Formats: sequence, C-alpha cells, structure tokens
Amino acid sequence: MPEPLFDKVALIGIGLIGSSLAHAIRRAGLAGSVTVSTRSGETLERARVLGLGDRYESDASEAVRDADLVIVSVPVGASGAVASAIAPALKPGAIVTDVGSTKASVIAQMQPHLPESVQFIPGHPIAGTENSGPDAGFAELFDGRWCILTPLEGTDPAALSRLTAFWERCGAMVDTMDPGHHDMVLAIVSHLPHIIAYNIVGTADDLEAVTKSEVIKYSASGFRDFTRLAASDPTMWRDVCLHNSEAILEMLARFSEDLSALQRAIRWGDGDKLFDMFTRTRAIRRSIIEAGQDIDVPDFGRHALAHPEKQ
Amino acid sequence: MPEPLFDKVALIGIGLIGSSLAHAIRRAGLAGSVTVSTRSGETLERARVLGLGDRYESDASEAVRDADLVIVSVPVGASGAVASAIAPALKPGAIVTDVGSTKASVIAQMQPHLPESVQFIPGHPIAGTENSGPDAGFAELFDGRWCILTPLEGTDPAALSRLTAFWERCGAMVDTMDPGHHDMVLAIVSHLPHIIAYNIVGTADDLEAVTKSEVIKYSASGFRDFTRLAASDPTMWRDVCLHNSEAILEMLARFSEDLSALQRAIRWGDGDKLFDMFTRTRAIRRSIIEAGQDIDVPDFGRHALAHPEKQ
Repeated sequence: MPEPLFDKVALIGIGLIGSSLAHAIRRAGLAGSVTVSTRSGETLERARVLGLGDRYESDASEAVRDADLVIVSVPVGASGAVASAIAPALKPGAIVTDVGSTKASVIAQMQPHLPESVQFIPGHPIAGTENSGPDAGFAELFDGRWCILTPLEGTDPAALSRLTAFWERCGAMVDTMDPGHHDMVLAIVSHLPHIIAYNIVGTADDLEAVTKSEVIKYSASGFRDFTRLAASDPTMWRDVCLHNSEAILEMLARFSEDLSALQRAIRWGDGDKLFDMFTRTRAIRRSIIEAGQDIDVPDFGRHALAHPEKQ
Repeated sequence: MPEPLFDKVALIGIGLIGSSLAHAIRRAGLAGSVTVSTRSGETLERARVLGLGDRYESDASEAVRDADLVIVSVPVGASGAVASAIAPALKPGAIVTDVGSTKASVIAQMQPHLPESVQFIPGHPIAGTENSGPDAGFAELFDGRWCILTPLEGTDPAALSRLTAFWERCGAMVDTMDPGHHDMVLAIVSHLPHIIAYNIVGTADDLEAVTKSEVIKYSASGFRDFTRLAASDPTMWRDVCLHNSEAILEMLARFSEDLSALQRAIRWGDGDKLFDMFTRTRAIRRSIIEAGQDIDVPDFGRHALAHPEKQ
C-alpha cells in the first residue's frame, strides 16, 4: 500500500456518495483513518454495522476535529448548516470539500462560515445510481467518471492538486470549472433529465384511461428507462431544484419550446421534420459510448443480465 | 423437437423484430420452413449471410405463397402497401399478423386489402432495443415480455389460439386488447417516452452555453439514459408519430400541463410540492421490478458490466 494521502478524513453524510467514498478510500488506502458522521442515529448505526469508518460521530464538529480532509456529502440544502456547525472545530490547513450537485448555491451557503485558515474547494463527482443510503455505496462508483472541482479565487494550488490526486485515486478523472458554468452544464445533463423523468412517471400515474397495472406490464417499451431516474432520492432532488432554479428554469424553457415544435410537426403530419429530428440524436449516443461514458450493449445489457447463461 | 406449429412461415421485413422472430422460431422449432422477404436487396443479402431463413424473396407476394403464417414487421407507414402487395398471393386459411407499434392505423391500412379467406390478427410484441436491422435480432428478445393481440370481430378462435401459442413459444406472454385501447396504452408507455427522449437530446444538442463535448463527458449523471431511446430507428418512430398522432398529442398535452406545474413549483421554491412529486414516483419502479419487467440492479447493472471482474 502506498502512503495515505491524508492522515485523517472526515465524511459528513454517509448516503450513496459518502458510503461509496468510504469504500473507494479503503480500496486505494487513501486515509490513515476515516471518521463517519451523520445526524441520524439510525443511519450512523447502519454505517457502523457496515464498517464504513474507523470512528463514528453524530456530532459533525467532533468528527472534523483534527481531520486533514473533510468531505461534506449531504443534500445541498443542508450544506450551510453543516458549514456553520463544523467551522469552529476545523483544523487550520484542512481541506474542506463537498460533493453537491449544485455549486454556486453551495458556495454561497458554506463560504461565509468557513475560516480563512482552511482550504475550501467545492467539488462534484458525476456519478450515481438510483439507490440511496449507506447500503447503496460501492468502491467502483467513481471509476472512469468525471469529478468536477470548482476552486475559488485564492485557492492554494498545492491543496487543489492534493484533492485532485485524491479523486484520481478514487478512480475518477478530474476537471476544474467555474461554479456558474458547472451549474449550467449540470442543469442540462443531469437536472433536466431527472425532472423530466419524474414528470413523465407522474403523468402516467395520473391517467384514468390507462390503468397502473397496464403501465407496469408494458413498461419495457420505453417507460421503464425513466422510472430509474424517477426513483432517485426525493430530498436530494428537491434541494437541487431549489438551489439551481435559475439554470433549470432556463433549460426547461428551451425544452418546452422544442417540444412544442415537435408537437406541431406531429399535429401537422410533417414526416420529414420528424425524421430529421429523430436522426440527428443518434450521433450523440455514439459519442457517449466512444467516450466510455456508457456501455455499448443493447438495452443497457438488460436482456443479457436476465439470461446470464446466454452470455 | 415438438411438431412445428406452422408448416411455412413468411417474415415480411427483417429488422430488429423480424430477425429476432427468425431466431426465436428456430430456437423453439415453430416452423417447417421460414421465408424471409424485404424490399432492400442489401438487407436481404445480409439476412442470407446471417442464415435467418430457409428461402429469401425480394418480392413479398412470392414469399407469402403457400405460407400458413405471414408476419409483417415493417414500419407502420408501410403496412398498407405490404398488404396490397401480398393480398392476391395469400393462401386461404393463412394467418396474417403484424408487429406494429400502432394498431388502429395498421388495421385501417391493411384490412381493406386482405381477402376474407385469411385470418388477420393484428399484434404487437412489447419488446425492443435501440438497435435496428437484421443484425440486431436475438432469440431472447421476447422472453418474459408481453405481446398484445388486437383481434377483430369475427376472428376464428382457433386461429387466435394458434397465434397465441406461437408467441408463447417465442417466450412471450400474450394479452388481447381493443386496438384503440392499445394505442392509448402505448402512447404513454412507449411513444411519449421516446418522443421526450428525442426532444431532450435535441435540446442539449442546440445549446450554445454548454458544448457538445461537455454534454458527452458528463452524461453519466442522467442524460445518457435518454440517449438510448433517442438512438432508436428514426423511420419507425416517424411512422409511429404519424400513425398514432391523436393519442400521442393527448399524452403530450397532459405531460406539458404537469411540467408547467412542476416548473411553477421550482420558480416559487415550493419544496413541499417538489418533495411530494418526487416521492410518489418511487413506487412505480418497485412495481415494475416486482412484475419482472426490469432488473433490480443499480444503474441497470452498468457499473457491474463495466467491471466484469467485480461480479
């Protein structure tokens, strides 16, 4: 095992991302010791049963005492309260980061509380599944995925490169970006898709002419792909909508405008326009597969998994 | 091998569904011989190279001569022309069926051409992948999936039960339904999801503030799930939109109405409403998994597939 990158790491919040970090840190030997902290006694107990850390603290300020790296992995709406709670106990020189899906709002919430003696480097690993909680984590979650860091003015380059090395040894590739641009990019690649997925599942749920059992039975024809995203953690997504509302509303407006044009082409039977719209979208999927961000297996390999003996 | 259900089967169209049928028929020994027909000389040659049938005909009317079962697997907009071409050559007593994603329009296009001496039983297997063409087919496509038959008034019950047995031995479960109701159900479970997926991928493609390479790099955060549906066959989906426009426009109107309400909740920061909307959708995914229509593996098992050594 190489020398740990950090002597003491504190994980504040131990959901899907926090618990995956615990596994990834252990896999790569990145920390001398890991302290896990979460407000919920039940979740903390579950983390202990799973053996995710070396120490367990319900009080976040106790957890960060002496920590060289503090990773805040809570719904973005809670990041201000966490920053305020941990600020007095932070060790000078510590790196404080987060994994929130919105960056401008997290910075606005956390920065005012944090002492100048720590290095605050906001971050966001672009990885996840529809599962949540400490049982959902696994060491490979970040493998081959991007992690975006949005360093603030005056960030110590040594701290930035240490955090970059940390994420790389968790399996990720690291990019840096302006927080506002991050929020715009994520609004289209992540926030809008989740909102649309929640919406279409809701629409189907409300129909009178089509029963719920019919929606479920015949979901293999397209609908079920949306239900995965729409099964994601509601608290996390409520907070994302509240904390990146400007960029999300901008993307929603564009989406709705485009949808009206498509709707019009359907109403007027404009087959050429529909064919054009349905053709150009293929290229994007090919590029995603070439970039290693999805697997090139029909139907995400689902039929193969359902019939493992055929592989 | 049991006795074949049909002596001679003719497959008109040999794309994803037609070629999967060829494999499924062979797997279960359902036909004495299979004749493959498609208008494109190139596709027919490919089918021959793949060994999908016993005979190959570019002329559909030649292919159906003497056939006991004729399965039309072409984009729904082409079904009228196929019916007109094969009608004079059909053998009295033959069963003619199709696999089109819309039923009322296929019936309106095909029925006027078909002689009373054949049994026309429209059908639709609820199965597919984003791939198309004769290379895309595989025998397991229909395993555990539903196939909906929409028999017309006066259908011979013996013919219906023979076609039902055929689909069951292809691996499917069979339901019967009124054609109009089928079109309404499919509009929500299949047509709307595909249209929405095409639309969101188009919206992302048009952005100026976010580059295409950013969309691709960070697509693992939700967007890539949509690109799979949006990579489906454009001809097929153009035809679906043109031939089930009424039901699709109805579903699009409801979807847009719901999306406006969600948009409003985001604009006004109504966290409770967002939380409620994002909570009720989880139950549907659980039901789909319980019904065996999707796999209960996080992220559709994609991380597992990317790291086969970890399984």
